Amino acid sequence: MLGLEAIYHIQSTPDQIEARAEALAIEQSIEMPPVAVRQPEILREVLAQVVSIQEAEAGYYRVVLRFAGQTTAFEAAGLLNVLFGNCALQEDVELIDLKLPPELLATFAGPRFGIAGLRQLTGVHDRPLTCTALKPQGLSPTQLAELAHTFALGGIDIVKDDHGLTNQPYAPFAERVPFIQKAIAEANAKTGGHTLYAPMLTGGPKTLRQRLQVARQVGVRVVLAAPMLMGLPTFQEWVEELEMAVLAHPAFAGHRIAPSLMLGKLFRLLGADASIFPNYGGRFAYSTQTCMNLAQAARSPWAHLRPTLPVPAGGMTVERVEEMVGFYGPETMLLIGGNLLAAGDKLLERTRAFVQKVAASVGQI
Amino acid sequence: MLGLEAIYHIQSTPDQIEARAEALAIEQSIEMPPVAVRQPEILREVLAQVVSIQEAEAGYYRVVLRFAGQTTAFEAAGLLNVLFGNCALQEDVELIDLKLPPELLATFAGPRFGIAGLRQLTGVHDRPLTCTALKPQGLSPTQLAELAHTFALGGIDIVKDDHGLTNQPYAPFAERVPFIQKAIAEANAKTGGHTLYAPMLTGGPKTLRQRLQVARQVGVRVVLAAPMLMGLPTFQEWVEELEMAVLAHPAFAGHRIAPSLMLGKLFRLLGADASIFPNYGGRFAYSTQTCMNLAQAARSPWAHLRPTLPVPAGGMTVERVEEMVGFYGPETMLLIGGNLLAAGDKLLERTRAFVQKVAASVGQI
Repeated sequence: MLGLEAIYHIQSTPDQIEARAEALAIEQSIEMPPVAVRQPEILREVLAQVVSIQEAEAGYYRVVLRFAGQTTAFEAAGLLNVLFGNCALQEDVELIDLKLPPELLATFAGPRFGIAGLRQLTGVHDRPLTCTALKPQGLSPTQLAELAHTFALGGIDIVKDDHGLTNQPYAPFAERVPFIQKAIAEANAKTGGHTLYAPMLTGGPKTLRQRLQVARQVGVRVVLAAPMLMGLPTFQEWVEELEMAVLAHPAFAGHRIAPSLMLGKLFRLLGADASIFPNYGGRFAYSTQTCMNLAQAARSPWAHLRPTLPVPAGGMTVERVEEMVGFYGPETMLLIGGNLLAAGDKLLERTRAFVQKVAASVGQI
Repeated sequence: MLGLEAIYHIQSTPDQIEARAEALAIEQSIEMPPVAVRQPEILREVLAQVVSIQEAEAGYYRVVLRFAGQTTAFEAAGLLNVLFGNCALQEDVELIDLKLPPELLATFAGPRFGIAGLRQLTGVHDRPLTCTALKPQGLSPTQLAELAHTFALGGIDIVKDDHGLTNQPYAPFAERVPFIQKAIAEANAKTGGHTLYAPMLTGGPKTLRQRLQVARQVGVRVVLAAPMLMGLPTFQEWVEELEMAVLAHPAFAGHRIAPSLMLGKLFRLLGADASIFPNYGGRFAYSTQTCMNLAQAARSPWAHLRPTLPVPAGGMTVERVEEMVGFYGPETMLLIGGNLLAAGDKLLERTRAFVQKVAASVGQI
């Protein structure tokens, strides 16, 4: 049977790395001393195998392990458990990448909208998409709705909640969402545009159900969610029955798992239609290589899985639009928040400048 | 209003640390440049404050931030977002501890059983509890049930699934759980004991509901769950309606969050009755200080929250029982898995030796 391959970086000395890799293979599969296993077929079929060990850089090794696909139970929780359950607690191990065998990959539906679906929802077919965020925390529903109205007048494609907006007393979900959705609809009526509002969804299953009901009633078609805050198996199950597109937010995704794997591959596998991540040169220390790997993991061909739209963000500015479009190409959504809001009374003008720069970038791609 | 305090370790140079701490306060609260905030009351009431900065060790600073309690929306997802949402992606930041103001703490029920409830369920009042695990992966329900029967005959208090056992084709949940529960009941009937079986629960909300139904039907009274695999808000909501005790497993809990905070305080806050963690001197690099801090966070008095039972584990041996009881004291459950299974045909004898050592340790505490 074809196996599941996982690629780790392990910090080790040369003389220790073989034993360390073997110990990891045991930890993540049978989790007991092989000599104490009484069934030879379990050692043959269930114990993970060390496929290769290569020095990656001084003191770090790239180790490939092969697992039996059935140990994942063909479910998200089982897969994560096998890949990074116990070794999440071992600081010398980082999870870099994975290769799923066809019968395991087939059990994941991936994005239901993907890039094509998001383009259809927003009516944008010939340029990168634009996105902004409603903030700061502390604004009332009326104040947030005013901001949203201005952003929609300015022609932004998707106006999302700040990921910190959940259900605070100053802007409860059930009050905020109808207000903002209405303000955007009014702006769309004036401009003939198709700006969408993406409210932030959080909570356990019951809370999610209640809030989604509110969003659905007022016609919301895209939502924002943080898969790692929600729990990945919950996210996957939730997305499967959702008739809305999902922007994934990276909040709480701080494992020693490579960003391209976590925010690119895994979020796509579990159903994110778009994935927000920290762009290089902003408030986060992601390199250009990390960002490119992530964007490629999100949107390169991958079996039956629809591509996920990469959304670079985190301290971006209108001045960097050309550079970002040049780097990521057209199958991208640019997310600029604080830099628009910093325009104060000129918010509409700055928003329009952002939108126009993105539109103008098309000829240059 | 009393605020929420979060304590971070930040890696920084002396000349950068003040600006870095301010940037973290902004990132985790208003997430935009303060100069661009047009409402002075938001700067006063919502922007997090830097309370103190102290050098912890060379190149590392202990930074205390104070947040407005209402920014958490008084829910688990909001709390985690505020504490470690975006900064989970910043590798220079580690979350060390938190202090919850009374009105926020009051919204969390914590463990419903706690140590007293687990002692009542197991009928053990005068000694540490004992626990073991069913493994390896790959055994059939019949083979797992045989092991469970032997462990119960040997007098173990709680026999849990290996956390890797979810719903694999070779031991599907719906087949495995009734088999094992029955095997333990038969052993209890012979010995007059009260061994409990704790099956591993995983999945999204729908899957969890289905599997819980199976467990409930056969009389399961304790379950094993990995809160970080499940998603912390899902875990909290799920526990609130569960009539069973919950052992928390640390799988996938690999954030840059101090173990005492994550596996001790946060798991307790969200309802774990017992918390499994890697003991010092095993396969994981936890220090004695980390383990003691964790045990104390789990079981020290904390407002209305019942104490959570600490469960040191991870490569422990029967030979270390005395030392572990001496270190953790009687309000503990010792978990030994592979070291019992390594006894092969002498499994019952080794199990009895473990149980007797724990019983004998009482006089020495």
